[in-house]
Amino acid sequence: MARVRVGVVGYGTIGRRLASAVLRQDDMALVGVVKETPDYRARLALQRGIRLYAVNEEGARAFEKRGMAVAGTLEDLLGQVDVCLDASPEGIGAENRRLYESKGVRAVFQGGEEPEVADLSFVAQCNYERARGARFVRVVSCNTTALCRALHAIDGAFGIERAVAVLARRAADPHETSKGPIDAIVPDPVSIPSHHAQDVRTVLQNLNIVTMALKVPTTHMHAHSIMVDLKREASAQQVAERLASSPRLLVVSSSEGFKSTAHLIDYARELGRERGDLYEAVIWGDSLHVEGRRLFFFMAIHQEAIVAPENIDAIRAMLNLVDGAASMAKTDRSLGILSGQLKLEARAA
Amino acid sequence: MARVRVGVVGYGTIGRRLASAVLRQDDMALVGVVKETPDYRARLALQRGIRLYAVNEEGARAFEKRGMAVAGTLEDLLGQVDVCLDASPEGIGAENRRLYESKGVRAVFQGGEEPEVADLSFVAQCNYERARGARFVRVVSCNTTALCRALHAIDGAFGIERAVAVLARRAADPHETSKGPIDAIVPDPVSIPSHHAQDVRTVLQNLNIVTMALKVPTTHMHAHSIMVDLKREASAQQVAERLASSPRLLVVSSSEGFKSTAHLIDYARELGRERGDLYEAVIWGDSLHVEGRRLFFFMAIHQEAIVAPENIDAIRAMLNLVDGAASMAKTDRSLGILSGQLKLEARAA
Repeated sequence: MARVRVGVVGYGTIGRRLASAVLRQDDMALVGVVKETPDYRARLALQRGIRLYAVNEEGARAFEKRGMAVAGTLEDLLGQVDVCLDASPEGIGAENRRLYESKGVRAVFQGGEEPEVADLSFVAQCNYERARGARFVRVVSCNTTALCRALHAIDGAFGIERAVAVLARRAADPHETSKGPIDAIVPDPVSIPSHHAQDVRTVLQNLNIVTMALKVPTTHMHAHSIMVDLKREASAQQVAERLASSPRLLVVSSSEGFKSTAHLIDYARELGRERGDLYEAVIWGDSLHVEGRRLFFFMAIHQEAIVAPENIDAIRAMLNLVDGAASMAKTDRSLGILSGQLKLEARAA
Repeated sequence: MARVRVGVVGYGTIGRRLASAVLRQDDMALVGVVKETPDYRARLALQRGIRLYAVNEEGARAFEKRGMAVAGTLEDLLGQVDVCLDASPEGIGAENRRLYESKGVRAVFQGGEEPEVADLSFVAQCNYERARGARFVRVVSCNTTALCRALHAIDGAFGIERAVAVLARRAADPHETSKGPIDAIVPDPVSIPSHHAQDVRTVLQNLNIVTMALKVPTTHMHAHSIMVDLKREASAQQVAERLASSPRLLVVSSSEGFKSTAHLIDYARELGRERGDLYEAVIWGDSLHVEGRRLFFFMAIHQEAIVAPENIDAIRAMLNLVDGAASMAKTDRSLGILSGQLKLEARAA
């Protein structure tokens, strides 16, 4: 079977990771990436043999001025691909959609776009089947992806009456030196619920959830403090086992040195992951606490990486290549994604 | 009436503020402060006319070596005071208690000590009357003080079925340069509930509350994300009014520029407060959100300052000087403590 021809539009925090993930798939070919700025990232991409496309002719000249070869423009790329992974800055994806439509190219958008940009919002383990054959799919944001993975697993086993999540969000990615705060906690938004609750419901339609969001001065991962009222009683151990048997959720223990988000990133580096990425939502197993039917736990999310596998699965769903279980297993193998309970044993996919 | 003779034991983050607060009371006299290290804080205290006492003879020699006059040792101080405000490092207060007992001196301890150090744990607006005549009182920690103030006010008006609070704690005070993290979110403790829930119950005995605590890289205030299941229905407006009519709670609006904990500290500086202190627990009025009987809101707490007024009131309760309302009003006037809703008008005490 011919490989799916994939273009990546936008080569920032997310786009770079999507390009890397596509390169690891044996049923996909990375035709090229669209990049706006001729910087060190562009040069590294070229050195790795990735073809660069400029946004337009003017952009192409900027690359050429710096001696970086471009293979064409975004429009040229669209003539050569079956599907685009659009990782443009917030709002630009919606503008690009018209272009994709006119060229008959399918596209996967990211969570920064409004849900209306696509036929559906997507988290592979929640609604892969619904994305089969879709022309436009939106992978939800990092926070929403993690909430959907964990709450879907819990809901399936024990039922969820109501959930509340407090999101302590990393304020900036490591390279974003102009973003703050340096020394403050920012309720963001001050109003409750934050938009994340509504975003979770674009995937888990009937979930009763309220989210409250804060920005805190760190670059390493978001941390969620989660409370769930279950429909059926469950012990902390039962919940741990359920989470550990669900894809892309890693249950760790602070007794093995996982004391903070920084330790999780250190672990990803130690694993030899590309860019030190953690694709898994990580749950502290020793935080799981049950009072009656109310469950509490802490979860951490690597905002730069968690959506990469979802983008890959979205492509297979849209092109009807394989079923969800097969796609996720393939993606997880290609990226070395773990699941299970580290305290016992982590299962490589 | 003769002024109450007060000694402050420990002159760190809290002790300095307690000494300043005592100096502002017309029914108290600051006899002196006990300090371990002859540093710039000690020199400033001397320049302000505060008498310094060393921990022991050896400590006294260390001060003299630096040319700082000491009026004696802790033991000498105890012969001259009616009550000590003990702001020693965690655990030292319990050791000092034996000394206070042997000298017949009353003492107020801080929240770092175990509840057993004192006859009761104390938040002025919750249980002033219970502290009347007590020999030993423990003012609870900054986080617990704020939770008690806010939840006591809400419970009194609407009843509390259950409460959950996620505490995003400032990791270090501004001068604590050896404490971290710099770039991580630390579930601390990882286990749920954190000790804060139990500590709240040392004051509000029957409150059903679970707390989850994180450390985040900031020095400016703790931020609480709070969820309360009320016994009786209430609108966000009714809750705002209740909070605004309770002492030492300030209801602010992000639309007036209160976007983060840093803006609150900036406000305290702009007010001209000594050391830029905020003695009030601050609630974002525009975060108040009600779904059915479930209430959500954000609250911020200046960890360095919030317990200062409680220590002053504890003295008046122990010595049976006046009733709670009179003591709190007097303390609040002396420190310029505000309450009410800033959006409408802040009432100076």
